[in-house]
Amino acid sequence: LICIYLPDATADMDSYQVGGDEFKHLRAFRANQGDMILVSNGDGLLLQAEITGSDKKKIDIQKSRILINLKKNTNPISIAVGILENRDRLEFALEKSVESGISSFIPLLTEYSNKKHINSERLKSKAIAAIKQSNQAFLPKIEDHQTLPELVKQFNLYENIIVCDGNGDKFEGMKTDGRILILVGPEGGFSEKELQMLNETGKCKFLRLGVNILRTETAVTQVLGLLNQ
Amino acid sequence: LICIYLPDATADMDSYQVGGDEFKHLRAFRANQGDMILVSNGDGLLLQAEITGSDKKKIDIQKSRILINLKKNTNPISIAVGILENRDRLEFALEKSVESGISSFIPLLTEYSNKKHINSERLKSKAIAAIKQSNQAFLPKIEDHQTLPELVKQFNLYENIIVCDGNGDKFEGMKTDGRILILVGPEGGFSEKELQMLNETGKCKFLRLGVNILRTETAVTQVLGLLNQ
Repeated sequence: LICIYLPDATADMDSYQVGGDEFKHLRAFRANQGDMILVSNGDGLLLQAEITGSDKKKIDIQKSRILINLKKNTNPISIAVGILENRDRLEFALEKSVESGISSFIPLLTEYSNKKHINSERLKSKAIAAIKQSNQAFLPKIEDHQTLPELVKQFNLYENIIVCDGNGDKFEGMKTDGRILILVGPEGGFSEKELQMLNETGKCKFLRLGVNILRTETAVTQVLGLLNQ
Repeated sequence: LICIYLPDATADMDSYQVGGDEFKHLRAFRANQGDMILVSNGDGLLLQAEITGSDKKKIDIQKSRILINLKKNTNPISIAVGILENRDRLEFALEKSVESGISSFIPLLTEYSNKKHINSERLKSKAIAAIKQSNQAFLPKIEDHQTLPELVKQFNLYENIIVCDGNGDKFEGMKTDGRILILVGPEGGFSEKELQMLNETGKCKFLRLGVNILRTETAVTQVLGLLNQ
């Protein structure tokens, strides 16, 4: 089913009018009267609806049933990802994070980040595209980019902090309860200085993902796969 | 370091002349005399070399040291991936498979594959690009596409066969020794009939990757992450 994003949708409402981008999205997929679609409000609600009518600017839909209705995203995973020069790869890391159902995504400015700024609005629109692709009820929060020292100051918000690093330990037996922050470096990983800073917090566990050197978006996808097991 | 693919390179040779596509590749990266590069022959050899000279059609390189020299790819993983309509996503699954160091990749024709044929030559060139990106000594074998019944006939070649399926078991405690074949379906997974056929072989373990419905290339990346742990 085609899924659209309607941030104003609520569980109580019976019918909705779809305009703007989501109208265009449905048009592009040639959705017709009688077709079933999915609606996510990005805030815990996913429902199935039927197209009941349309005109040149809007499509009318009628709620048929509620599939998911949660108050709060209880997934405890935030992920901070080193900003990459290659925009496609960072966006792929974001897409895979959204697909795995994380609660927040933090673009991270590190020593080896070749690119120093990021278009947050574009990332947010990519996150919306990803929740529609994977029918998620929750839109993860896309945080503003942070430097590593800025992020370290927030470490007290998390019970477990996992840093992906080629010299780390295996995942087996790693403690992963409570709120989790995952850090994945850009291509080239974290610098020696950064690893030392992270180590000195006394709060980080260092995780090695296999024997091969992985690209950032691969490490992101694999660490989330391990945590979702 | 820039990595190039020279299938004719051997451990004994001291100097090589690089022409053709790899010459263009080095030119595109503005490699100059004195620069170090990596060379993979895709057959177990990865070496470091120095650029010693060039003209309009070739670049001369000199071996400086051998980094990897193995007779045989001992990685026991083959992966069969449902052919996807979206070429980018199938190629991404291939790239991630190569990055994880598998030994063979099998495009799989299933009931839910919307696309019925595949350009093997293009996949091979994508695999070569991927070994260069991740500095692999071995180029995985890209098999011709097979139907599921054809693949089932080959099951006796493997000690462990893992089928990714949303109704399967957790990875924890799953046996993964010997030669391993992984099966990942296209979007929509395997059909009921296909799952029954696989189950009736008595040889398959069914693996559930987390609670979310995953795209094919995500499932590929995550299952290889689990096996590489």
